[in-house]
Amino acid sequence: MADASRYGVWEICLNGPKDGNPFTEQWVLLNVCSLNERAEVDGFYDGEGRYIARFMPSFEGEYRYELTASFLDAPVKGTFTVGAAEEGNHGVVRTSRYWGLSYDDGTPYFSIGTTCYVWELQSDELIEKTFETLKNSAFNKIRFCVFPKHYVYNLHEPRSYPFEGTPMDSSVLTKENFNNYKGAAEGNHWDFSRFNTAHFRHIENCIKRLGDMGIEADIILFHPYDRWGFSVLSEEEDLFYMRYVTARFAAFHNVWWSLANEYDLMNKSDEQWLRIAEVLVKRDPYRHMRSVHNCFNVYDFNRPWCTHCSIQHSAIENTDIWRQRYMKPVVLDEICYEGDIQFGWGNLTGEELLRRFWEIALRGGHPGHGETLLGHDDVLWWSHGGELHGESHKRFGFLRDIVALSPGGQIVASEKHRNDEIKAEPLNDRYRGKYFLYYFGNRRPSFREYYIDDDTEYEAYALDTWECTKTYVGTFKGKFRVELAPKPYMGVLLLAK
Amino acid sequence: MADASRYGVWEICLNGPKDGNPFTEQWVLLNVCSLNERAEVDGFYDGEGRYIARFMPSFEGEYRYELTASFLDAPVKGTFTVGAAEEGNHGVVRTSRYWGLSYDDGTPYFSIGTTCYVWELQSDELIEKTFETLKNSAFNKIRFCVFPKHYVYNLHEPRSYPFEGTPMDSSVLTKENFNNYKGAAEGNHWDFSRFNTAHFRHIENCIKRLGDMGIEADIILFHPYDRWGFSVLSEEEDLFYMRYVTARFAAFHNVWWSLANEYDLMNKSDEQWLRIAEVLVKRDPYRHMRSVHNCFNVYDFNRPWCTHCSIQHSAIENTDIWRQRYMKPVVLDEICYEGDIQFGWGNLTGEELLRRFWEIALRGGHPGHGETLLGHDDVLWWSHGGELHGESHKRFGFLRDIVALSPGGQIVASEKHRNDEIKAEPLNDRYRGKYFLYYFGNRRPSFREYYIDDDTEYEAYALDTWECTKTYVGTFKGKFRVELAPKPYMGVLLLAK
Repeated sequence: MADASRYGVWEICLNGPKDGNPFTEQWVLLNVCSLNERAEVDGFYDGEGRYIARFMPSFEGEYRYELTASFLDAPVKGTFTVGAAEEGNHGVVRTSRYWGLSYDDGTPYFSIGTTCYVWELQSDELIEKTFETLKNSAFNKIRFCVFPKHYVYNLHEPRSYPFEGTPMDSSVLTKENFNNYKGAAEGNHWDFSRFNTAHFRHIENCIKRLGDMGIEADIILFHPYDRWGFSVLSEEEDLFYMRYVTARFAAFHNVWWSLANEYDLMNKSDEQWLRIAEVLVKRDPYRHMRSVHNCFNVYDFNRPWCTHCSIQHSAIENTDIWRQRYMKPVVLDEICYEGDIQFGWGNLTGEELLRRFWEIALRGGHPGHGETLLGHDDVLWWSHGGELHGESHKRFGFLRDIVALSPGGQIVASEKHRNDEIKAEPLNDRYRGKYFLYYFGNRRPSFREYYIDDDTEYEAYALDTWECTKTYVGTFKGKFRVELAPKPYMGVLLLAK
Repeated sequence: MADASRYGVWEICLNGPKDGNPFTEQWVLLNVCSLNERAEVDGFYDGEGRYIARFMPSFEGEYRYELTASFLDAPVKGTFTVGAAEEGNHGVVRTSRYWGLSYDDGTPYFSIGTTCYVWELQSDELIEKTFETLKNSAFNKIRFCVFPKHYVYNLHEPRSYPFEGTPMDSSVLTKENFNNYKGAAEGNHWDFSRFNTAHFRHIENCIKRLGDMGIEADIILFHPYDRWGFSVLSEEEDLFYMRYVTARFAAFHNVWWSLANEYDLMNKSDEQWLRIAEVLVKRDPYRHMRSVHNCFNVYDFNRPWCTHCSIQHSAIENTDIWRQRYMKPVVLDEICYEGDIQFGWGNLTGEELLRRFWEIALRGGHPGHGETLLGHDDVLWWSHGGELHGESHKRFGFLRDIVALSPGGQIVASEKHRNDEIKAEPLNDRYRGKYFLYYFGNRRPSFREYYIDDDTEYEAYALDTWECTKTYVGTFKGKFRVELAPKPYMGVLLLAK
């Protein structure tokens, strides 16, 4: 019987001092090695005299460890055995060749993301509803914040706070005046040197449950929508928080790091962001996906610390251009949400959001969803989670399945696609010619004519991406024609026999 | 009783030689002057020994004329009287200030165009149907060609040809092989020095009837979709044709000159196009609107001969950028058509074409329609005219009426509009603050919040551009909110009391 599983969490817990300030006065360091890997990770204080160090092994077999701590006279040493990964755990998502994404074990990963900024800071009941919704969805990534969110439709208190202390009295807030309370509003009393361990323990339970469901946790470390002062910590406090979060969360296989939601709305210099990123580069030995999300201009994803492009943009037709420009995977984390609120970023139709999903997928990117529909007691999926009321999300599984039909499981826009369609082919060159996916978006051709070559036989399917139907049309070679219902959101799939 | 009306056609006809080649061997020149204007125009040979010279007076009053000709020993001189313009005739459309469009008499002109490439070369019955359709439409400009069109869905013979001679046998053409017959295909026998006067007489009758209906005739002088050789005339023949067309058509108040449809698909140098334009600059004394339409890259509209931008483009969100770049009116002559054919340029939904119309109008441009719907015996409005079967065209009158509500009758995008709406204001600065038009396109806000100033009272209307309804919401000042049905294609109109 193994002590841990590959890509699982191996944890060591020990008791130590609880007097003074254990967060600032004590430290724990875990060194781990095996035939295949070697790592040094930070432990962390979990409250009540409890210190924990965590490690995620990427290989099966025997591991040795050595734990040192400020309060230990001698290192604690030992061994543990790592068995096979639990079913469904494929390890950390990484950039694969051709700027695609794959899990550590080589399984291709096509990201179908959603955004629920503070779903995990709601009531137990709402959180369970969110899990239930996610379980029945095609989502395999969810973006959310460690810090609570202060914004219109987001004025109530979170279930807990990241620091010890007490918040301002929020009963004074209204939809009209909330904007007057920004950053470190008066009435907040926090000790930024003491973490609220219950807050982080709760979040890591959520991360773990997401991981068990095959969903990546895209963790937003900073964001500007704040009344408590968490967006305007000193640089020292920022880095102190970064070390703590990294120590607690990095060992979960499904973690992604998003430095910020809308970094460019925050008052941090470029150098400060780099020093924040540096904590991850140095203290996350698993090299989880790392990026940062913009409000106005996208970040300079050429920077070596970024593993991928995390983009907020409406002009999603640029997906293939970004991909070629940055030579990194392109994740469209915010492309406006399905909704009907007053703001343009949150009032797309389901049809339009689904169109953007297909457009992005065929251009070789990874699309992200959000929902801001009114009429449900101001519980909006985008921030609170709960139930989905829109139309687009029901149709993402069909997209996933069509992508999965490609040899290699990954697709990318052909450089030779015409401007009245997008044409995608398998990401890996070796499969070229085996699979062609065409998507017409808003256009509605009655038929399309094809010629690939004289010899290869193709099974042709008409796709209705709204009705989620894949209809066999015939098997052809040479020049042939595919009839289509003349309506938007149709596609054609050709599979070589 | 006047001899002519302002902006009408005054014509003088005389007999002359019909032997030899009257087109090349004879010439007629008409000089006209009055207190207000002075012009020299070419006459033209109309067949059967008949020579005609035409003039469009832009002023009321007494005119003197002097006609000289190669076959006259002495000039013919005389006078004529010009009375008031006929009802509905406002003269030539011109660039007005702020790069808007107005008729010569100052009436604002907002162009709602359509494209029917060779409607006038169809059967009498089909032509009458087209007139009937136009009569019941909001269109006030139609683009069409002098030369017949050879293309898929356009393989039959035109009713007449521009030159004397005989065409190739078109019974060999099929949808599959038509592309093998390009430019001067074998089997054509034309005398490019002799015009078929019946062809031009017919077209000018069509121009005149359009003019009586208040519709501008946007005449396409050259185009590449050819099997007869008309697209590959020698330069001398091109200019000979240009002089003839200018002499015949320029006196009709509603003429616009489009040098070409998709000039960049034709084998003419930049200098050749300039020499073609020069004929219009020198021989059209009324200075009708002049431009040229692209396939790939737009023409350099900075050129002095161009009065406006005539653009084929799908990225119509650039309308205000083109306007500011070229500082000329922007006419979007091809923005993809409502249809369901196999090509991306002809399979938009009615909803999307209508959206483009509103988007262009609010950005200060002039939109153009076309229809390529199958299922009507391959009679497609885009080329043949006839009946309209689509959905967008029924809704253009509503757009026209909303634009017309603006003081000055012309609108332009505010530089301060947000990126989740377009906001248009009156074109003329003196009316700023009196009229605000907001359009949300694909987005679907449940409500929007406004603040113009503390003092001005505004009547607010919710617009449904698809249902063509304008619903009074209330009269407000200061900060206020307008409730909307959460669906696409909505707008808000604010009118200062």
